[in-house]
Amino acid sequence: MTTEERVREAAVRLFAERGFHGTGIRDLAQAAGLSSATLYHYMGTKEDLLVGIMRTSLTELITAAEAIAGSTPDETDRLVSLVEMHVRAHAGKPRETAVVDGEMRALTGERRAEVVALRDRYEQIWQDAIADGVNAGKLHVAEPSVARLALLEMCSGVSRWYSPDGPLGLRDLTIQYGAMALGMLGAAR
Amino acid sequence: MTTEERVREAAVRLFAERGFHGTGIRDLAQAAGLSSATLYHYMGTKEDLLVGIMRTSLTELITAAEAIAGSTPDETDRLVSLVEMHVRAHAGKPRETAVVDGEMRALTGERRAEVVALRDRYEQIWQDAIADGVNAGKLHVAEPSVARLALLEMCSGVSRWYSPDGPLGLRDLTIQYGAMALGMLGAAR
Repeated sequence: MTTEERVREAAVRLFAERGFHGTGIRDLAQAAGLSSATLYHYMGTKEDLLVGIMRTSLTELITAAEAIAGSTPDETDRLVSLVEMHVRAHAGKPRETAVVDGEMRALTGERRAEVVALRDRYEQIWQDAIADGVNAGKLHVAEPSVARLALLEMCSGVSRWYSPDGPLGLRDLTIQYGAMALGMLGAAR
Repeated sequence: MTTEERVREAAVRLFAERGFHGTGIRDLAQAAGLSSATLYHYMGTKEDLLVGIMRTSLTELITAAEAIAGSTPDETDRLVSLVEMHVRAHAGKPRETAVVDGEMRALTGERRAEVVALRDRYEQIWQDAIADGVNAGKLHVAEPSVARLALLEMCSGVSRWYSPDGPLGLRDLTIQYGAMALGMLGAAR
């Protein structure tokens, strides 16, 4: 593991456990086995670290969602594939995704604008998928934007409760979420 | 407003904005216009304050949910009423509910056990409502506990995005959530 990877892993863990504002630079340096000066040299400020974590996570989600959108013309299948991908990402990396979802409030100015733009780009793919399904007569929702927000909150929530050590396997989890998503979006059964 | 109310309001605001670990006793005292010693005299430790906020919020939810469960024999209606109540509470008190949902990680020992027991009691009412609906043949889900967690995450999520100043009224919001909830739980249309 490189120094950068070690620092990032420590930051994800501490931000998830104690929150961004509750994590000091010294805590981060100690957890990564570095001095504060060395940490700064490698990684910049605490806010740089947070933005880096968010940029990586959101870019991975966007890449995966664009691949699905570009290769799945059937509107129902596309929605299910997006749900399965998002649930798998949030169940598999619960701390990263919880930090991305929960600490946007900690950013200000240009950094906030950059991360919000990435999040908006990701959510637009979902918005389009829902709107396409409605236009094709396959999904039935009162307002696509409300449905999108509700669906994403439902799917992101697995980062708060799912445990890979529990009785529910990841494959079964994603199948159940796909079915619930289609139901809430009024898909024909 | 009593001193106690003023302190609690400041605590809710700061915990929601900066997280529990990111909020110092001095920040709290300053926000409430008190000295740290006076704050301690009135409210005890920072953890006491957090537990008090969580106890109040969860007890209100339990009281409302028990009233619905005791007065709504139809399984479908009961589920919709629970969803509308929960969504209204989370849209109307976004900071309180976000602190309750997000800061349980900050508690340890007996305090944690007390709050987890309240949360479990609240979720059991939902679990029973879903199981009753499945047993009555009105709802169709693969696993009631997974459906309960997904549904609660979906509904609690409004505290993170809903704005009373936006175009969507609270009544319309709760109606749309009731319909989406029935869809995801496989209710007959």
